[in-house]
Amino acid sequence: MTSKQPIGLLDSGFGGLTVASEVLRQLPQENILYVGDNLRCPYGSREPDEVKRYLFQIMDFLAEQGVKMIIIACNTATAAGLEEARTRYKIPVLGVITPGSRAAISATQSERVGVIGTDVTIQSDSYRREIHRLNPRLYVVNQSCPPFVQLVEEDRTEAPEAHPLVASYLAPLQQEGIDTLILGCTHYPLLAPLIGEVMGEGVKLISSAEETAREASTILQLKHLLNADNPAPQHRFFTTGDADYFQRVGSRWLKREIDVTGIVLGP
Amino acid sequence: MTSKQPIGLLDSGFGGLTVASEVLRQLPQENILYVGDNLRCPYGSREPDEVKRYLFQIMDFLAEQGVKMIIIACNTATAAGLEEARTRYKIPVLGVITPGSRAAISATQSERVGVIGTDVTIQSDSYRREIHRLNPRLYVVNQSCPPFVQLVEEDRTEAPEAHPLVASYLAPLQQEGIDTLILGCTHYPLLAPLIGEVMGEGVKLISSAEETAREASTILQLKHLLNADNPAPQHRFFTTGDADYFQRVGSRWLKREIDVTGIVLGP
Repeated sequence: MTSKQPIGLLDSGFGGLTVASEVLRQLPQENILYVGDNLRCPYGSREPDEVKRYLFQIMDFLAEQGVKMIIIACNTATAAGLEEARTRYKIPVLGVITPGSRAAISATQSERVGVIGTDVTIQSDSYRREIHRLNPRLYVVNQSCPPFVQLVEEDRTEAPEAHPLVASYLAPLQQEGIDTLILGCTHYPLLAPLIGEVMGEGVKLISSAEETAREASTILQLKHLLNADNPAPQHRFFTTGDADYFQRVGSRWLKREIDVTGIVLGP
Repeated sequence: MTSKQPIGLLDSGFGGLTVASEVLRQLPQENILYVGDNLRCPYGSREPDEVKRYLFQIMDFLAEQGVKMIIIACNTATAAGLEEARTRYKIPVLGVITPGSRAAISATQSERVGVIGTDVTIQSDSYRREIHRLNPRLYVVNQSCPPFVQLVEEDRTEAPEAHPLVASYLAPLQQEGIDTLILGCTHYPLLAPLIGEVMGEGVKLISSAEETAREASTILQLKHLLNADNPAPQHRFFTTGDADYFQRVGSRWLKREIDVTGIVLGP
């Protein structure tokens, strides 16, 4: 394995671009490959075994492309399959739940933390377990917010219905006295302005994106796999959905023109 | 090696307690051993080879105590000896410069970053090199602030002379348009209120402490060395200086009563 090989990232759709964006910002010399499984998005209300099957299809694809590390930039897929993925692949595999947990532990002062995510993520209770493994003293409250992913995938975060929808799902958390809220889905940072407005200034929002990129940097460095001399990095994007739509939305999200190739995975 | 073994931390004096404090907060189940070389503090204006000799004396002591990881919670000692330390000891050795660099890369929006530290740290240019290894686009400006350590060690951070002294050393940085300032010495977080006042609200202060604890967490987890079941952790402190003074000042810094043992190292 060499440092010149790309980092692979994957998500059910666009959400993982929040992580890709941080990787590009914090590690601008890395080559990356990104797969969005937009055709089968959202993952969040599927059976965990189905999500795992999709995850391994994408990881096989990335492994064939010769990536040096895979970042599962999707909370649902991390919750469903990270542990098994680590035994199946020889390269380092990073999820988003552990970095997000660590960031929340570091951020909270009141030791009361909220987590929002998809059904699969929340039902797995992965964040609570991960947080308690590190710090059992923290109070952790979960809230499932299934429709949020669709709001983002369909580019409706500024639509009139978005605010009341977000507010209704967050209402149960407002009584919990939390000072930190984990955005436990890589799509949610796109809703951060709305979520912040509903939760108020006293609640710090934790996006896994920034933390995951930082943790990727730590691990690559530890394994002597950081790409430290690459003035013209290559970034390639793949989608199981409509390549033109991905190109349009993805370029806007990443604030740069991206190349997108359609791929078929499955069944 | 087992997860039950303690984490070793060291510093020229009290400064590393800012890192110890974050380790205790983020990883409350870890046993720790801390060595403060108060007798020979400050390190910052000594010859790098002398600092390195002191560093290895302390690391030998910690290794004999059976630590599972050593955190060099001192920027000066990290700058002088981290690389060589990694080849001398078989356990993971973590410095404070890489975590601080990563945090600054993550924090800056303007891509203009300042670094303050001791003479040894600043002359080593370690922060700039580390930052540029990850992201060569960042502008990094260094400023040596030798007397700051003494202010902290002598408990004079609120003395009337502290503000003008801090302001005079930071003056050159105020023209640099930085939005992020690395407190490149583990003593400096104790001066953060003053430094923040001088630099203004637009400049984010980066303490290595929080980041180093988080990176320790990442690395321990990666190596399956996290202590995940330790309801009554042990924390032991050693100083080459006056044990009673260390006990008094250290307990106040850590907001808990600590046990301190005097030790002799050297020459």
